[in-house]
Amino acid sequence: MSLDRLIEKIEQTQNPTVAGLDPKLDYVPEYIREKCFEKYGETLKGAAKALLEFNKGLIDALCDIVPAVKPQAAYYEMYGPFGMKVLYKTQEYAREKGMYVITDGKRNDIGTTMEAYAAAHLGKVKVGAEEHEPFLGDALTVNGYLGSDGIKPLIKTCLKNDKGIFVLVKTSNPSSGELQDKLVDGMPIYEYMGKMCEKWGEELPGVYGYNGVGAVVGATYPEQIKRLREILPRTFFLIPGYGAQGATAKDIAAAFDKNGLGGIVNSSRGIMCAYQKEKCDEREYAMAARREALRMRDEIMSFIGKITAEQE
Amino acid sequence: MSLDRLIEKIEQTQNPTVAGLDPKLDYVPEYIREKCFEKYGETLKGAAKALLEFNKGLIDALCDIVPAVKPQAAYYEMYGPFGMKVLYKTQEYAREKGMYVITDGKRNDIGTTMEAYAAAHLGKVKVGAEEHEPFLGDALTVNGYLGSDGIKPLIKTCLKNDKGIFVLVKTSNPSSGELQDKLVDGMPIYEYMGKMCEKWGEELPGVYGYNGVGAVVGATYPEQIKRLREILPRTFFLIPGYGAQGATAKDIAAAFDKNGLGGIVNSSRGIMCAYQKEKCDEREYAMAARREALRMRDEIMSFIGKITAEQE
Repeated sequence: MSLDRLIEKIEQTQNPTVAGLDPKLDYVPEYIREKCFEKYGETLKGAAKALLEFNKGLIDALCDIVPAVKPQAAYYEMYGPFGMKVLYKTQEYAREKGMYVITDGKRNDIGTTMEAYAAAHLGKVKVGAEEHEPFLGDALTVNGYLGSDGIKPLIKTCLKNDKGIFVLVKTSNPSSGELQDKLVDGMPIYEYMGKMCEKWGEELPGVYGYNGVGAVVGATYPEQIKRLREILPRTFFLIPGYGAQGATAKDIAAAFDKNGLGGIVNSSRGIMCAYQKEKCDEREYAMAARREALRMRDEIMSFIGKITAEQE
Repeated sequence: MSLDRLIEKIEQTQNPTVAGLDPKLDYVPEYIREKCFEKYGETLKGAAKALLEFNKGLIDALCDIVPAVKPQAAYYEMYGPFGMKVLYKTQEYAREKGMYVITDGKRNDIGTTMEAYAAAHLGKVKVGAEEHEPFLGDALTVNGYLGSDGIKPLIKTCLKNDKGIFVLVKTSNPSSGELQDKLVDGMPIYEYMGKMCEKWGEELPGVYGYNGVGAVVGATYPEQIKRLREILPRTFFLIPGYGAQGATAKDIAAAFDKNGLGGIVNSSRGIMCAYQKEKCDEREYAMAARREALRMRDEIMSFIGKITAEQE
C-alpha cells in the first residue's frame, strides 16, 4: 500500500518531513531566472524552465535525507501548459531520485469527473490500445466537501495503482474555523470529516497501522492535532503550517505515536528560501535548503524519538 | 462586472444554459479520433488534439444560441500538459466566438497559493517585464471548505481583471448531503456556505441585482434551490445536474426571479452526446448538439418566461 512505502522511506531517513515544492518565481535565484529568460524569453515557458532547474537542484540536495516532496499544483498551473509539463518533469525527477511524491492539488468533483482527476494524478489513461501516465504522484491531496461520491472513485484508482490520498480535514489557515470548527452532530466539522477519512481508509489497509486515506491537519492547531490523533488511530497526517506559518516542532508532536509514526510535516518556503534567510550566495541555494532540512529534521526528531516501522 | 456580461449574453440569446465541455474520449466521434491518432499516434497528444477538434465543432454549432461554455478541467488534466494546452485552446476559441467561459476547476487553497490559482485561471502572470494569461476563463468554480482565506485572494483578482467565481454550495451528487446537509448554527451547511457567498459577493456588486460570487447549486435538489433563492437574493446560481443526472426544467424553475434571471443551467453529456442518443451519423454530432441545446433552451424557457436584464 502506497502510504506504507512513505512510512518505510520515513524510517530509512529517520525524517518525518516533506519538502514542499511551491516555487514562486521570486524564490528562484536570479542566475537561474536570467539563464532561462535569455534562452526562452520572459515567457511562461521561460519561467517554467527556471522552476524546473530550481526544483532539480533542491531534489538533488534533499533526496538522501528527506523522504518526500510535495509539489503544489497551483504554482505550476500558473505557468499554463508549460508549468504543467514542469510539474510532470519535477515528479519524474523526484521519482528517479527515490522520493515519494505527494501532489498537492486539493482536487474534488464527483463520479466520472473525479475518475478523470484520479486517472490524471494517480492512474493511467488509455488512448486507443496505449496506456499513459499524465502525472506521476504517489499520492494526491483532495477536498471532501462533496462527500463519498468524490472520494470513492479515488479509492478505486488507489487500489489499482498502489496510490494514496490525503483529505483536507483541519487546514492550517487562520480562517479555517469559519466552516471547519462549526459543530455538526455534536462535533466540529473537522472531526466529522476526519471520521469519514478513517472510514474511507478501511478499504486501503496498511501494514504499519495506517490506512491509505490520510488527513491534512494544520500544524498551527496543536490541540486539534492531539484530538484528531486520539479519535483517528489509523489515519496518517500530512501536516502543513510548520515554519513560515508559525508552528513549531512542539506543536506537532502529538501527531505521532509511540513508534514515531503517524504524520509527515511539510515545509515549503523555509526550505526553498533558506538561502535568502541565510543570506548566502544564491548559487548555494540547494545546500542552504539541505542545511535547513537537516535542522528541521533534528528539531522534529528531538520531540519524537527514533522512528520504528513495525508491521502490525 | 463579469457576471453582468454573462447575464447580458443570457438575455441576448434568451437562453439561461451553459454547455459543459467535459469531453471524454468515448464521446468524440470515431472519425475525429482516428484522424488524430493517425497523425499523432495513440498518445496523450493525439487524444488532446481530438478533444480540441470535437470542442471546436461544438462551439461553432452553439455559439449563436448558447451564451456560455463550461470546460471541466479534469477532462483536460487527464491528458497531461497536452490536455491543459487544449483547455487553453478551447477557452480561446470560445472567447473568439463571443461565448462566456466558466472554467470548472473547483480549485481551493489559501493565501499566496490561492493567489497562484487565481492568477492561473482569472488573472495575469508576470514574468520579468512581461504579462501573460495562462488560462482564459471568465469565471472559475471554487470550493470554500477552507473559509475566507481561500476566497479573498480570488475576489482581489476578480476585481482587477473583471472576472467571477462560483462557490460550491449544494452539489448535485447523491452523497452531497453527507456533509452539506448537516446542521450548523441551526441551518444546513449548504445554507451557511451560501450565506458566506452572499457576503463575499458584496465586494463584487453587479448592475442586474446579482454579485460576482455565484453559487453552485445542483438541479437534483429542487427544494434546496427554492430555499437558497429565498435566502440568497443577490447570488447567481450555476446549476449542474440537468439531463443526464436526472433533473428536469421544472426542478430548476425556482432558481429564477421575476425577470427570468438568477441562474444558468448546465448540460454536458446531453449536448455532447446528442448524436449518440439521436443515433444520427457521427459526422453530424455538432448539429445534433445544436438541436439538443435548442430543445433544452425551449424546455427551460417554458418554465421561466422572457428574460429581461434591467439595471437596478
